Amino acid sequence: MAGTRFSYVKTFEQPDPLLPETYMVLRLDGHGFHKFSDTHGFAKPNDERALQLMDAAAAAVMDEFRDVVLAFGESDEFSFLLRKKCTLYNRRQSKILSTLVSFFTSVYVLRWPAFFPDTPLQYPPSFDGRIVLYPAQQHVRDYFAWRQADTHINNLYNTTFWALVQQGGQSTTQAHETLKGTVASGKNEMLFSRFGINYATLPARFRKGSVLVREVPKVEPEPDVDAAGGVCETDARQDAVPPTTSAPSKRQKKVVVVLHEDIIENQFWDDRPELLA
Amino acid sequence: MAGTRFSYVKTFEQPDPLLPETYMVLRLDGHGFHKFSDTHGFAKPNDERALQLMDAAAAAVMDEFRDVVLAFGESDEFSFLLRKKCTLYNRRQSKILSTLVSFFTSVYVLRWPAFFPDTPLQYPPSFDGRIVLYPAQQHVRDYFAWRQADTHINNLYNTTFWALVQQGGQSTTQAHETLKGTVASGKNEMLFSRFGINYATLPARFRKGSVLVREVPKVEPEPDVDAAGGVCETDARQDAVPPTTSAPSKRQKKVVVVLHEDIIENQFWDDRPELLA
Amino acid sequence: MAGTRFSYVKTFEQPDPLLPETYMVLRLDGHGFHKFSDTHGFAKPNDERALQLMDAAAAAVMDEFRDVVLAFGESDEFSFLLRKKCTLYNRRQSKILSTLVSFFTSVYVLRWPAFFPDTPLQYPPSFDGRIVLYPAQQHVRDYFAWRQADTHINNLYNTTFWALVQQGGQSTTQAHETLKGTVASGKNEMLFSRFGINYATLPARFRKGSVLVREVPKVEPEPDVDAAGGVCETDARQDAVPPTTSAPSKRQKKVVVVLHEDIIENQFWDDRPELLA
Amino acid sequence: MAGTRFSYVKTFEQPDPLLPETYMVLRLDGHGFHKFSDTHGFAKPNDERALQLMDAAAAAVMDEFRDVVLAFGESDEFSFLLRKKCTLYNRRQSKILSTLVSFFTSVYVLRWPAFFPDTPLQYPPSFDGRIVLYPAQQHVRDYFAWRQADTHINNLYNTTFWALVQQGGQSTTQAHETLKGTVASGKNEMLFSRFGINYATLPARFRKGSVLVREVPKVEPEPDVDAAGGVCETDARQDAVPPTTSAPSKRQKKVVVVLHEDIIENQFWDDRPELLA
Repeated sequence: MAGTRFSYVKTFEQPDPLLPETYMVLRLDGHGFHKFSDTHGFAKPNDERALQLMDAAAAAVMDEFRDVVLAFGESDEFSFLLRKKCTLYNRRQSKILSTLVSFFTSVYVLRWPAFFPDTPLQYPPSFDGRIVLYPAQQHVRDYFAWRQADTHINNLYNTTFWALVQQGGQSTTQAHETLKGTVASGKNEMLFSRFGINYATLPARFRKGSVLVREVPKVEPEPDVDAAGGVCETDARQDAVPPTTSAPSKRQKKVVVVLHEDIIENQFWDDRPELLA
Repeated sequence: MAGTRFSYVKTFEQPDPLLPETYMVLRLDGHGFHKFSDTHGFAKPNDERALQLMDAAAAAVMDEFRDVVLAFGESDEFSFLLRKKCTLYNRRQSKILSTLVSFFTSVYVLRWPAFFPDTPLQYPPSFDGRIVLYPAQQHVRDYFAWRQADTHINNLYNTTFWALVQQGGQSTTQAHETLKGTVASGKNEMLFSRFGINYATLPARFRKGSVLVREVPKVEPEPDVDAAGGVCETDARQDAVPPTTSAPSKRQKKVVVVLHEDIIENQFWDDRPELLA
Repeated sequence: MAGTRFSYVKTFEQPDPLLPETYMVLRLDGHGFHKFSDTHGFAKPNDERALQLMDAAAAAVMDEFRDVVLAFGESDEFSFLLRKKCTLYNRRQSKILSTLVSFFTSVYVLRWPAFFPDTPLQYPPSFDGRIVLYPAQQHVRDYFAWRQADTHINNLYNTTFWALVQQGGQSTTQAHETLKGTVASGKNEMLFSRFGINYATLPARFRKGSVLVREVPKVEPEPDVDAAGGVCETDARQDAVPPTTSAPSKRQKKVVVVLHEDIIENQFWDDRPELLA
Repeated sequence: MAGTRFSYVKTFEQPDPLLPETYMVLRLDGHGFHKFSDTHGFAKPNDERALQLMDAAAAAVMDEFRDVVLAFGESDEFSFLLRKKCTLYNRRQSKILSTLVSFFTSVYVLRWPAFFPDTPLQYPPSFDGRIVLYPAQQHVRDYFAWRQADTHINNLYNTTFWALVQQGGQSTTQAHETLKGTVASGKNEMLFSRFGINYATLPARFRKGSVLVREVPKVEPEPDVDAAGGVCETDARQDAVPPTTSAPSKRQKKVVVVLHEDIIENQFWDDRPELLA
């Protein structure tokens, strides 16, 4: 049969297994999201709807792929940690990479109307991704610290920048000029003295990014309340809140929760030894 | 700054350039589409709406990425040929793979309602992909011949199978049993004698798959007529149709057209030497 | 200049960095050494000269490449551990692999006459190699345990096999037949009852293989005594021997020593924490 | 058995097949040969014995590995072309690379005394190597043109440089200074006017490098005449020499011959269509 004669072309497919027992981090980024955010009227410096949509897509990835044990997102990027022992698709790089990026994209488009009910998509948003391998726990810790430190740096810059533009009446060129050479403390001071903004009181989501892990929910999730589709939002301040039910709940199933807390220090990791197990 | 201390983790990113001056074929496949097609009520053996949506997503990929010069689709898979000289993203494999699969997925979800107006998506469809390199023209010819031969084999089987089930009253188990060990001629005969179906007269789309190339349109496309978004559909029989305008048109811009014609023989390739240039 | 016109061919060279901070193990094997050992009259089941030559070549590799912290050899194979932080040749795989295998080969041929003074090389011996990455200490421990367990299995088999042939008068076919299905205890018993050989008292070199590490020599090496070129031979039993100099020596420089001791249990590794640091 | 418990470490070995039906070029280079040539008193600018030893090692590689159809050498480097259809070791990169570099090294050391009878090796010479893939004939042509153009550039420079030093009495620093910014014609002129050297009449080996192919020898090789081991030396000028036997020889077996002729122009390749077949 003709199929047989041509099927030698399959021999050109190269194997691409990722090194066993190594942490995989898949990071995806919005493709051309500067233009995309302008076209779709994202608020500056942070658009809460857009960030929540990113979180929802990431949570869906974690619901679908149990090997993803942690995700961290800021702006138009998300990083996913796959556990060291992961054998998903026999650790074939292209298969894992393409499947997860595709799934994330699919959710992003599918759920868009729930987060932007009045803003139809003007064109298809897309994401690119890559997988990076880390051999040791410390590397993984430092990877996520790197992303959260980046979140802070970017957000402080962007918050000050847009304050100068939106409240200070500067042009974007002037605002860039104003900020040239400033350090963190200078920007904090500028925000407070010129615009009355105490950076530390801004929403944790903007300052810390989004941290997704699986947890037994502290508060019973109420189904269907959240148009965004049941992602259980928990912020760092809830940590002090006592559980609402004192009796041991039967529904101890872990769900994906979205936190906005520090992942640079030890506490987060000490509380969740399973992440790096 | 903290960012600096952690940024060494970037050094773990491995380069992944694809060999220069080699043809790339990116093939993507629906992830779990057997279940997906059942859930969304796809017609058997072929759902024209679903195939058209695949074509529309592939055409959008070609509109977005000029390096894609040819695409071939059947069922829930599509193959894209990137020209030999392509330097997109410096030929970085992960970047090309993830971006194109993401973009395809995005269009698939975004355009779904246009093709399935009465069938809301029940859950996010996704696709996986891989890139295969071919050093020579003959390999590329044989790759696409392999896929089109596969289309024929699958479609003949599926057409007979579903005729046995839908018209012949067999269970799916019985139908599999009936077809066990049959060859092409046997299935053709069975279709004709038992169900009055002349396989050769079935729609070319089902028998040949979809072939997407850029062409100066033979018939002026009429904007907005096609709810699917302006993909210019051309079938093989139009080849005999004389151009509607005898005067040289000013609008000679090439657009992506969808053909359903043979790509195993030489004619298709002889007519389009630029594909393998 | 003509050189410029052609130099684009350099762009086809692909980068091949090995993942940072991961243990590299380079294992090389004699190419066609079954025939080579026959041609050059190696003693069966073990040729001490041949093993010493392998050790000498491996020791030379360690003298030349400081990143190699441990080597283990048996028969015609040697494994080299490169420390986790190794940045030799920017961790380029092909460069490291080819250079070390070439260097080993060079020493093997150059030093051949010292170990086989009466047996000229009939043809060039060669070795092939590969590099395997291990992310964690336990993998490295298990890798070397795997090789030493293999040494034991092979040596027990070969010792019994050649006893059957050389002392028992069996043909090689008969000897294979005799050993089919036997377990370790059966071979030990056979050696003792039929040939009076107590396996445990055979030379440690044959039973344990060769373990090369850098150490402050317990006995001052006496230059030029060893025709094989100054490899300092130390066997496990020397561990109990007190240092010959009670006064602290000024010459505390570490040299490569050849041991024949257990590397499966913890002791060896506990004594040398620097190997896996 | 213990072997089983540890053998999981084999799963860390990564596959590394080279793309099928693509030309492989393996290039090896002397490791630290600047120092090596000084230590062993190589003549400047070219040491004929050293070059002949390189040729002999390369010829032995071609005798051993039939997939190598062409080799080109200059100075301390050699490039080997493996035919496109080569399936040696299932095209495993590490295996091919390490084996060939090891074999070359082995011959180099083994044959050293035949070429340097009065100069014992002071230390083990070694080579590193890499494999580069080329998809098309033109790339292979251009690769070898690149190396031969490089030979010319280097040799013209070195010839002039050492003339300035050896005959002109300049220090090496002065000679470098003298040559700074000169072009080819300037060096040719300098050689002729100051030192009476007509560059074009220097030995073809120095100007063109060594080209090794398999040929039916034009002149019957006389065994054992050549201390270097039977490599059949043929230079470009022999091309005009009529065969010495007019009767068809029974001994038409091809042997590896060393040529010193142009491989940039078409003639060489037109005469040997099998090289790129």
